Amino acid sequence: MNNRLCNILNIKSPIISGGMVWCSGWELASEVSNEGGLGLIGAGSMSPDVLREHIQKCKKATKNTFGVNIPLMNSNSPKHIDIVIEENVPVVFTSAGNPSTYTKKLVDNGIKVVHVIANEKFAFKAQEAGVSAVVCEGFEAGGHNGKEETTTLVLVNQLVGKLDIPIIAAGGIATGEQILAMMVIGAEGVQIGSLFAASRESSAHENFKRAVVSAKEGDTMLLLRNLSPTRLLKGNFFDSIKAAEDRGASKEELLNIIGVGKTKIGMFEGNLDEGELEIGQVSSMIDKIISVKDIFNNLRKEYSEAYLRMKSINELI
Amino acid sequence: MNNRLCNILNIKSPIISGGMVWCSGWELASEVSNEGGLGLIGAGSMSPDVLREHIQKCKKATKNTFGVNIPLMNSNSPKHIDIVIEENVPVVFTSAGNPSTYTKKLVDNGIKVVHVIANEKFAFKAQEAGVSAVVCEGFEAGGHNGKEETTTLVLVNQLVGKLDIPIIAAGGIATGEQILAMMVIGAEGVQIGSLFAASRESSAHENFKRAVVSAKEGDTMLLLRNLSPTRLLKGNFFDSIKAAEDRGASKEELLNIIGVGKTKIGMFEGNLDEGELEIGQVSSMIDKIISVKDIFNNLRKEYSEAYLRMKSINELI
Repeated sequence: MNNRLCNILNIKSPIISGGMVWCSGWELASEVSNEGGLGLIGAGSMSPDVLREHIQKCKKATKNTFGVNIPLMNSNSPKHIDIVIEENVPVVFTSAGNPSTYTKKLVDNGIKVVHVIANEKFAFKAQEAGVSAVVCEGFEAGGHNGKEETTTLVLVNQLVGKLDIPIIAAGGIATGEQILAMMVIGAEGVQIGSLFAASRESSAHENFKRAVVSAKEGDTMLLLRNLSPTRLLKGNFFDSIKAAEDRGASKEELLNIIGVGKTKIGMFEGNLDEGELEIGQVSSMIDKIISVKDIFNNLRKEYSEAYLRMKSINELI
Repeated sequence: MNNRLCNILNIKSPIISGGMVWCSGWELASEVSNEGGLGLIGAGSMSPDVLREHIQKCKKATKNTFGVNIPLMNSNSPKHIDIVIEENVPVVFTSAGNPSTYTKKLVDNGIKVVHVIANEKFAFKAQEAGVSAVVCEGFEAGGHNGKEETTTLVLVNQLVGKLDIPIIAAGGIATGEQILAMMVIGAEGVQIGSLFAASRESSAHENFKRAVVSAKEGDTMLLLRNLSPTRLLKGNFFDSIKAAEDRGASKEELLNIIGVGKTKIGMFEGNLDEGELEIGQVSSMIDKIISVKDIFNNLRKEYSEAYLRMKSINELI
């Protein structure tokens, strides 16, 4: 096995595809696992029945380890937890909630648990709750984000040596050089979102994928800082929220604009005008909709080239 | 010489201390250069006469290459440009302005010019203007910042292979591991701000330095997004601006709150209640006020350890 994280999760490559709403179905998850990484199914946009279906299809499509991401704030999360136990899912990533709520129950049922954090305080909380690793997700990441706005470069490095469990870096990663850089500052794996959200196997709508690969620098920004910080792709939905924030709108007004089901409209149904488009800052570096196989080939090539180049970097500064 | 950047700038180590207002006087700059890095004097908070005095003292205090950072938006910048030419300063970093304004004049006078950028567009503009290198300064950096909020991890990596000139990474860097990580994603040097702002040799007030080393995660945030994005340490000045922005204050109101000379009050006079405190996100990782010599010793030790540890990281993923 590659390193401590690979041993714990029983995977070949420490590359994890994020369990993203409307993107991470069984096709994406199973293909990432087939490539030797860890594919995650995103339960956040699934009803309990749909989640069960995706898990069962994923099992048929890969013999390798895969996992499910369960956002704990989701009202379906108690049912999602029961389903991953019933279906003997080997790995569960929990996010957006208290890591102590379900970690023991999952671990007692033989499941490896990883929790997603965006600050030091929750990293320690997760470790105390008994998780096997933490995902340190920085400011660059798409969708929901931490209030501290700590970037991946700072978040990962500040926790190394303080935590006993492995760190998975997330946010702003889309190249093999960046993966190696995260290893250098102490991570043992990476979770990649945007690059897989725009992959062929992503279940997102083609319109959304095209918008992601067309995004330029500055086209995603973090909004909703006083409510629940969220990184969004620019568009009509973004503009409405930005204008409301600039005029000092109340939380109630903002919640009203956000509405319900807007990520489905934008990311799954492909209505870019009305929908909410969650994606990471690194989408400015993603230019093509390609297969998971090609993504892994690229990442491995870039990583190896960066590793070789390392040797030409001076040992001393 | 260590690499291409070191050759161009005639320095031993590709570590540059940022030319920061109220922090970067001749004591800091000369000591960084004595350690083999490139020390920069920060002209932004200096009258022309004071700048000349600092340059002359710096020349006496080091035989090595040093430089001056000139923010071009500063009304004194034409005089600053004349002074660095008259005083034969070997290296000038320009920032906050158009790189084509003075680059040719400086280069014609035998000065190496480096320009600070926060986005891809200005990186190309700087290269076209004839600068020797660019500082790619990410969202993590203290003080004035780019509107795109691109982080160092993304900004540096997205420009590698596109620019012909060397890239200096800046923003969020305070450890040797982070320096090596920046080399891995393609930088050839780093510019470090906060760590040197809180050093013994920094000319900032002791109260400000203590505030920097006491800062915890989330204690600096970017404000003034619709005016001129600026990363500030939390405090009364920060709170006034944040409250005004939250209620949808106009640009005029914001400019009124910002006032004039507030960085001097906070950073140089040490009045933390009334002053403006500009510092980077990475101040959460800085715990002690130490000498430049100790900073270089730490960075070199961490860098070498990270370099050695690299050999235990798998060559393949």
